[in-house]
Amino acid sequence: MDIFECIQKRYSYRGSYMKTAIPRENLEKIIRAGLLAPSGCNKQTTSIIGIDDQQILDSITSLINKNGFTGKTAPAGICILTQEIPGYADVYFNIQDYSAAIENMLLAITTLGYASCWIEGQITESTETQKQIANLLNIPADYIVVGFLPIGIPENEGKRPSYKSFSQRAWYNTYGSDE
Amino acid sequence: MDIFECIQKRYSYRGSYMKTAIPRENLEKIIRAGLLAPSGCNKQTTSIIGIDDQQILDSITSLINKNGFTGKTAPAGICILTQEIPGYADVYFNIQDYSAAIENMLLAITTLGYASCWIEGQITESTETQKQIANLLNIPADYIVVGFLPIGIPENEGKRPSYKSFSQRAWYNTYGSDE
Repeated sequence: MDIFECIQKRYSYRGSYMKTAIPRENLEKIIRAGLLAPSGCNKQTTSIIGIDDQQILDSITSLINKNGFTGKTAPAGICILTQEIPGYADVYFNIQDYSAAIENMLLAITTLGYASCWIEGQITESTETQKQIANLLNIPADYIVVGFLPIGIPENEGKRPSYKSFSQRAWYNTYGSDE
Repeated sequence: MDIFECIQKRYSYRGSYMKTAIPRENLEKIIRAGLLAPSGCNKQTTSIIGIDDQQILDSITSLINKNGFTGKTAPAGICILTQEIPGYADVYFNIQDYSAAIENMLLAITTLGYASCWIEGQITESTETQKQIANLLNIPADYIVVGFLPIGIPENEGKRPSYKSFSQRAWYNTYGSDE
């Protein structure tokens, strides 16, 4: 699968997953893809915890589930952590950093034949949920839990969202041009 | 090139570019890769202007150049715009959205044999620079200019940054585990 096909194929899957385990080798490939994302001023503010222990996974997904999380059937997951370290002076790029890392991981997940969904608001809208996940995974206070990616083989084909047309979001040389 | 090779190969290039033009077809492939990135609650907050008009390109890069921008020799570029539209309530994902779009475009640029560098702080640290670019490209006030990607064939092999080791940034099931 080339990069364009992979980008086209990726989508946010919100259905159930098959129980088929994710080999640790594949989980590592996904994590390494995340670690190789660029980071502002190379501060590498993103850290990643791969989760394939069923008990830990159940505990995390039940915390997220409180807010309507549907990925609880996934046999593995990725927990994304960020550190608020400035790129320079008081300029921070850590949101950009973990977002690029997540996108790399979503593409890696897709190319390996799995599905996922970028779960962020359901975690970050509650500092209590963030703290509970941090406690569960023994995460130090200088890291912030910002996201979770369920990983698994999808049971069904999920629904893809509609996209605005190219001409509504992209132009050449000048905003709104019809080149 | 598969996705893992592409992710491995991508890096921030800060040298000079060859003059070889970027076919519009390739610029479109890169832009479409960006538009296909996920966005929080599918709000599609990212917009993209592909630039291959030499005069406009020179004007933009000279604005960024004020702050030490090295990509002025690139024969094309991408200007990234964001709209501050909430995902829901007062929760915004637009930084995440454009970061995922930029990462997709950097991977597309890499797979097509070009190089680039994610330019953000040199633009966003100065609202004056942001406004000047917006004026130049006729961008309405509800869009914010947040990034620029030069695109071209690199003249030399650039220097890759060092990365922390896997065990410094990633673990399985619990923070700091040595699984």
